[in-house]
Amino acid sequence: MPEPIPDAAIAAIVAAGRRMDRHNWVPATAGNFSVRLPAGRIAVTRSGVHKGFLAPEHVMVVDGEGRPEDPALRPSAETLLHCGIYRRFPEARAVLHGHSVANTVLSLHAGGEILLSGYELLKAFPGLPTHEATVAVPVVPNDQDIARMQQGLDARWDSLARSGTAIPPGYLIRGHGVYVWAETMDGALARLEALEFMLECALQDLQRRD
Amino acid sequence: MPEPIPDAAIAAIVAAGRRMDRHNWVPATAGNFSVRLPAGRIAVTRSGVHKGFLAPEHVMVVDGEGRPEDPALRPSAETLLHCGIYRRFPEARAVLHGHSVANTVLSLHAGGEILLSGYELLKAFPGLPTHEATVAVPVVPNDQDIARMQQGLDARWDSLARSGTAIPPGYLIRGHGVYVWAETMDGALARLEALEFMLECALQDLQRRD
Amino acid sequence: MPEPIPDAAIAAIVAAGRRMDRHNWVPATAGNFSVRLPAGRIAVTRSGVHKGFLAPEHVMVVDGEGRPEDPALRPSAETLLHCGIYRRFPEARAVLHGHSVANTVLSLHAGGEILLSGYELLKAFPGLPTHEATVAVPVVPNDQDIARMQQGLDARWDSLARSGTAIPPGYLIRGHGVYVWAETMDGALARLEALEFMLECALQDLQRRD
Amino acid sequence: MPEPIPDAAIAAIVAAGRRMDRHNWVPATAGNFSVRLPAGRIAVTRSGVHKGFLAPEHVMVVDGEGRPEDPALRPSAETLLHCGIYRRFPEARAVLHGHSVANTVLSLHAGGEILLSGYELLKAFPGLPTHEATVAVPVVPNDQDIARMQQGLDARWDSLARSGTAIPPGYLIRGHGVYVWAETMDGALARLEALEFMLECALQDLQRRD
Repeated sequence: MPEPIPDAAIAAIVAAGRRMDRHNWVPATAGNFSVRLPAGRIAVTRSGVHKGFLAPEHVMVVDGEGRPEDPALRPSAETLLHCGIYRRFPEARAVLHGHSVANTVLSLHAGGEILLSGYELLKAFPGLPTHEATVAVPVVPNDQDIARMQQGLDARWDSLARSGTAIPPGYLIRGHGVYVWAETMDGALARLEALEFMLECALQDLQRRD
Repeated sequence: MPEPIPDAAIAAIVAAGRRMDRHNWVPATAGNFSVRLPAGRIAVTRSGVHKGFLAPEHVMVVDGEGRPEDPALRPSAETLLHCGIYRRFPEARAVLHGHSVANTVLSLHAGGEILLSGYELLKAFPGLPTHEATVAVPVVPNDQDIARMQQGLDARWDSLARSGTAIPPGYLIRGHGVYVWAETMDGALARLEALEFMLECALQDLQRRD
Repeated sequence: MPEPIPDAAIAAIVAAGRRMDRHNWVPATAGNFSVRLPAGRIAVTRSGVHKGFLAPEHVMVVDGEGRPEDPALRPSAETLLHCGIYRRFPEARAVLHGHSVANTVLSLHAGGEILLSGYELLKAFPGLPTHEATVAVPVVPNDQDIARMQQGLDARWDSLARSGTAIPPGYLIRGHGVYVWAETMDGALARLEALEFMLECALQDLQRRD
Repeated sequence: MPEPIPDAAIAAIVAAGRRMDRHNWVPATAGNFSVRLPAGRIAVTRSGVHKGFLAPEHVMVVDGEGRPEDPALRPSAETLLHCGIYRRFPEARAVLHGHSVANTVLSLHAGGEILLSGYELLKAFPGLPTHEATVAVPVVPNDQDIARMQQGLDARWDSLARSGTAIPPGYLIRGHGVYVWAETMDGALARLEALEFMLECALQDLQRRD
């Protein structure tokens, strides 16, 4: 019989969903969240439920390749993207995925990245002690083949690493939403709020006439 | 004496109203919701009350032609549109009607349909396993003669069926709002949230200057 | 000793403030609400408090000319506008005043009226059984001399009456907000929600580029 | 052992954070708030926590130069800006700092000030009995050297004083947010709500096409 999921992990996931729902970032059954557990296990939301009203039974466990411990349960379709983050970034312990109007509209028109600069909230990203930096948030094409999308992300991260560029702890999928991660769930929520705030600023800015 | 309305149907309708009110989709006394009951009965909201603050007594029963079981009660003015959906789509068991700023503004300027494409949330619609599809959401003229409006919808659905096009589980009435349906109330709410999210994206997109 | 204020009047005023605050229509200490009581008395909000957090002691009584029963209390600065409505419209029993971004921005650029047409929610206004009507919502200049502003309103209403035009149960003050009234507080809230919804649609519509 | 922080000061700070979070003005760990205590002490929020979910232990005490009474605690990075306000304006007893989309977008494009005129809510600012005034809200460059930013503010205030212009009880930092102050926390919240409402109006106004 597998280990139970720690209460703290379940509580963090349920609370993240409520908070994201308040922002309207988890419409319909969109969005998924996870927490890294000891021994290579990952607690992740189940598929097909509204993430603003999660109950403990909506959280399940997969291994590092996204395989459910309980084969009767189906994890979120994009679980492999969570695994891809945990595999690459050892410091990542919580991952959030959500949809916002701003990240959807901006990513549909963006090239390979969205540049953010001049915002004090850039300081919410690691290694940026000042608002004078520019963050280039990667934008990748949407793909229903999640393994292939993850390969594209790995290639992008490899390329950033080769060029000596810090990899931002988040990315956008075109027309699909945002992923962010951090060492804690509170940290991931803070980065998500900061990123979404700046994207909303960028969208409003595009609509100005002066 | 007629059968009472099942508690689950009442609870689903009351909760849907609260959730829609949080999105500001039921201003004034706008909006109406229904659930299909056994034996051809339909539980539907009464007319003239705020749908964000429904009490059990604000839910009543009509038959498949919209006639109230209790002749002392007045159903929502658009009950015949609910009946038209249940008559045409045997799988439909819950119908939601709401007003949003996005669906109102977009429908006032649309032709016979609004095209949505590129959004991951398109997958919330049936038969669309990928974001690469395009959904053409029908837009019909507003009409205070509800029976005549339903005739127009039937003609539109007939035309889609003849051309082999899947009929989307929703439509817009110009300047008036949206109807969606599904097999369950949760399913209808998910489709409504997905559709409204995409319409809000489309409206914001129309306001960009770049 | 004056009659106490009926509990129902206080409750209606307090609840209206909470609901309007949810819409962000009573920022700072803006907004004021009233209910007509028997014997020419009017229950109205006191000045200088946040209308989203009213307590019973924030409701006071004035007479038809806006004079407080308790001279130690100060009513909202615009109490004379409430009196002007009750004097002119015998059916009015509840008056709401609020500020919204949409009514502020639109009124600052409007001439003497704002035309609303094509919206199903126009039916929330009296004498409009169809969405095909056009409502001309009066817009009057702002003026810190409230008695003079009321004279302007009376002149406007006289002019509408002379031309046989129905007087809408609401008006805008330029850069300052909206007044609506109805036979009940629920009715006034419904009219306010309908009007604000249509003004928000009109503002979003002005921002479209297509 | 230092004096404890008065319960009323803690309660005012915690409640301000909840209210500002409802407006989405404290994303991530942004924002900070303070209350002036007797004997030159200042109660201020600690660094690195979400200001919408403050607990009493997230409030600490600094002196007039921003030095913590308890050297183990770290105050908000911008505590020196709070001290600068209390030093300059003896009547100030509560200071609020928040981020909004409107104040961020507008300040990024503004010169040295943002002009607000025609709004009834201008009356929420001191010495402005009428909407016909114009308020010039100072906009200063963002700077990670807080002491230097405060020197710039002092120079700006000196310049306003020399020219006989009333100093508004608030300013914007470019791309970074707003500061407001008042004699009480309720007064500061009212000024903040009024200012943010007018900035939102100004942003929406810039997006109109007519």
